[in-house]
Amino acid sequence: MDSLSKYYETVEQDKQHYIDRLSEIVAIPSVSCSADHRPDVVRMGHWLKDQWEALGAETKLVNPGTQELEGKTLDLPPVVLGKYGNDPAKKTLLVYGHYDVQPALKEDGWSTDPFKLVINDKEQMVGRGSTDDKGPVLGWLCSAEAYKKAGLEYPVNLKFCFEGMEESGSEGLEEVIRDEADKWFKGTDVVCISDNYWLGKEKPCLTYGLRGVSYFYITVQGPGADLHSGVFGGTVHEPMTDLVNLMSKLVDVKGKILIPGIYDGVAPVTDEEHQAYEGLEFKHSDMEDDLKHKVIVHDEEKKTLMHRWRMPSLSLHGIEGAFYNPGAKTVIPARVIGKFSIRTVPNMDRAEVARITCKYLNEEFAKLGSKNKMTAEMAHDGPWWYSSPKHPNFVAGAKAMERVFGVQPDLTREGGSIPITISFQEALNCNVLLLPMGSADDGAHSINEKLNIRNFIEGIKVFGAYVDELSKADL
Amino acid sequence: MDSLSKYYETVEQDKQHYIDRLSEIVAIPSVSCSADHRPDVVRMGHWLKDQWEALGAETKLVNPGTQELEGKTLDLPPVVLGKYGNDPAKKTLLVYGHYDVQPALKEDGWSTDPFKLVINDKEQMVGRGSTDDKGPVLGWLCSAEAYKKAGLEYPVNLKFCFEGMEESGSEGLEEVIRDEADKWFKGTDVVCISDNYWLGKEKPCLTYGLRGVSYFYITVQGPGADLHSGVFGGTVHEPMTDLVNLMSKLVDVKGKILIPGIYDGVAPVTDEEHQAYEGLEFKHSDMEDDLKHKVIVHDEEKKTLMHRWRMPSLSLHGIEGAFYNPGAKTVIPARVIGKFSIRTVPNMDRAEVARITCKYLNEEFAKLGSKNKMTAEMAHDGPWWYSSPKHPNFVAGAKAMERVFGVQPDLTREGGSIPITISFQEALNCNVLLLPMGSADDGAHSINEKLNIRNFIEGIKVFGAYVDELSKADL
Repeated sequence: MDSLSKYYETVEQDKQHYIDRLSEIVAIPSVSCSADHRPDVVRMGHWLKDQWEALGAETKLVNPGTQELEGKTLDLPPVVLGKYGNDPAKKTLLVYGHYDVQPALKEDGWSTDPFKLVINDKEQMVGRGSTDDKGPVLGWLCSAEAYKKAGLEYPVNLKFCFEGMEESGSEGLEEVIRDEADKWFKGTDVVCISDNYWLGKEKPCLTYGLRGVSYFYITVQGPGADLHSGVFGGTVHEPMTDLVNLMSKLVDVKGKILIPGIYDGVAPVTDEEHQAYEGLEFKHSDMEDDLKHKVIVHDEEKKTLMHRWRMPSLSLHGIEGAFYNPGAKTVIPARVIGKFSIRTVPNMDRAEVARITCKYLNEEFAKLGSKNKMTAEMAHDGPWWYSSPKHPNFVAGAKAMERVFGVQPDLTREGGSIPITISFQEALNCNVLLLPMGSADDGAHSINEKLNIRNFIEGIKVFGAYVDELSKADL
Repeated sequence: MDSLSKYYETVEQDKQHYIDRLSEIVAIPSVSCSADHRPDVVRMGHWLKDQWEALGAETKLVNPGTQELEGKTLDLPPVVLGKYGNDPAKKTLLVYGHYDVQPALKEDGWSTDPFKLVINDKEQMVGRGSTDDKGPVLGWLCSAEAYKKAGLEYPVNLKFCFEGMEESGSEGLEEVIRDEADKWFKGTDVVCISDNYWLGKEKPCLTYGLRGVSYFYITVQGPGADLHSGVFGGTVHEPMTDLVNLMSKLVDVKGKILIPGIYDGVAPVTDEEHQAYEGLEFKHSDMEDDLKHKVIVHDEEKKTLMHRWRMPSLSLHGIEGAFYNPGAKTVIPARVIGKFSIRTVPNMDRAEVARITCKYLNEEFAKLGSKNKMTAEMAHDGPWWYSSPKHPNFVAGAKAMERVFGVQPDLTREGGSIPITISFQEALNCNVLLLPMGSADDGAHSINEKLNIRNFIEGIKVFGAYVDELSKADL
């Protein structure tokens, strides 16, 4: 019998209480990219502080500075730091999460009010932030509380770091991590982040790699102001023509990047890696169901996963400065900025990616012979991340999942980037485990974002089992 | 001595009065594309009706129906019809203008409040609608009033048709013109429209040709919802990649259209036409001053004018559905709509243009081998227009300009379209003269739209001289 059975029972008993609490915090529209919602973000930070203090944790709010937003100077939302337990004999785990959310409007296409948690007939809790990342952040609190209620001693010293700016570039967090590395975070043995998703919908996973992202702007400046295409069409070099031409030379229809040398740094696939792709819970048919249309490029699941996890990709995101509304407008935009990003993988060098990309764009623009001005720049980038899934921190996570779900978790990588992973790894010199709570189809950042009740409740159990495993691990 | 010298004197004396009146109507924000401003548009229509009635005209407001706007069903603003004079011995002139304006916000970059007419140190009246088209519309009223005040008999029967939806596609007007052709407009000999601009800044012009416009949408539908480029980049066919590829195949950097057969219908340039381009008030240096940057494609003024007036052009306007805000967003847009338009010229066939354009796009898309769905469609089009500058209506206009400015006006064509020109020509079977009041640099639709005091006051004089010439013309 599992030594945590009393804990699991308590979690089951308090299920409705946990859901009610998630409702309570989904109703706080902590949208970090909006000046109007800044007070809500701050309120959400205080909610966490108050709840953890009520449980007996020591907390501290760190103000990471100010930002300019919508013409105002605003205080950034506080980073909520906590310590729960302080026993030198125990291991120390640091968990990270974020309490801010993406914007959401009913008009975007949500079936229900995005800031009112609604349980649908599939036992899914629909609401902005349910899975990204309020559910997991709340999970840690519920887990610690359930230990207490079950009369069990919490097996590790828990530290936490919950930020309110993750959806807006984690502004200020990097500095807080560096500042607190030898203070609040001192003594941390391992880090755990629950801010990503299962590979599928049924089987849990642990994540040991992330792609990086390098974001580029191509700015084409033509005339000094927007022009009427009737009056000027055919007589001036149009920035949109130049830009679309350049953007068309970056990637082909099947996703192959056309920048010379871009694949040079990509690590070759090893035999071991080839084998690791077998048996993962991933089917094209499921992915197509989610996509609603059959638009997958590759003919094999393994290729799709490799292109998601360990091959670079290039996506064209849009154009700033051009006409974007519904309807027809006959404008010649004067200045347009094409936006694209490259997902990077081991062992690509970020600086080299930026260099060859801008060089290529400059060369292609020169070939066009336009009189407009073009600037290609790397706007920002974040590194890829790769960890060994054999580290005891991962082993503890895997054992915990097996205890709760009865299956070995898939070992996965992710296509997206979680830059904070590397920040913690480097600042604290610790192993970082990504232990996802949500499912592949949760729709973080999309309309009708949801978290399955199963993932939430079993996830809370996993958090409890994971700290138990950690306490016994040989770190 | 000019028989109208008393009229000209009266116009000079009442100059300030005319400017004050323009101030009064610029202050009515008759923005037709906004539901909130609809009452202002209606108020502006009533202002015209009231003023003309005070002068003794018979008027009628026609409601052209309703429209759906911003989720509301709104009455369209009234078309203001008028008759001023009804002498069977006189010729009958119909003038058209519009009393609605483009939207304008101080934040767009205006130096001053767009709805407060401000006279700057260059004797320019800056304000939304000053030149497009409130100045000219008011000009007809001021001209008729000055005749009366000068004790002169108005030499023609004047009819007018002022609409409040020109900036929003002239919704409903076509039907009104057709309905009233044999009623209110019965007996019309010629039509005059003052809703375009001089070729340059000093010398007046008459306009005898306009390009048409055919507006196209390319819709590429990929997955069912926007995707995160980290998770899906490299694995799915991205609609932006397909779209940008197609858009890059429409036009080259120098404006040459790449659609096979598109130039087949273009009328060859005759010797007479070649000669007509000599001596026009047009310099690349002036155009570059206005453009602020040296982005003109052609090396000769004549080529530039030909490409503006009598050669087709293709402009890429933008993309709906992609990321367009400042900053960085790592989205894979699920459905994007590329917008472009082709300016058409004699003797291109609109249906053929639509056919070969969509055919070409379908063929190019098939070559890509994408699994996304693409639809190319012609969303709407308006025909080109061409009239003989030797028609007595044009001769009357030319003589009027010579009387007021002391120079023969340039005979010009325009790159833009004024669809209503053709509607009047066809419905009333009359010659239509485009007699512009404003100058090339007025910036209609732009920030800091202005009308020079000189253009306004001399324009009112021209309107008076034109009706005098018409009364003597052999139509």
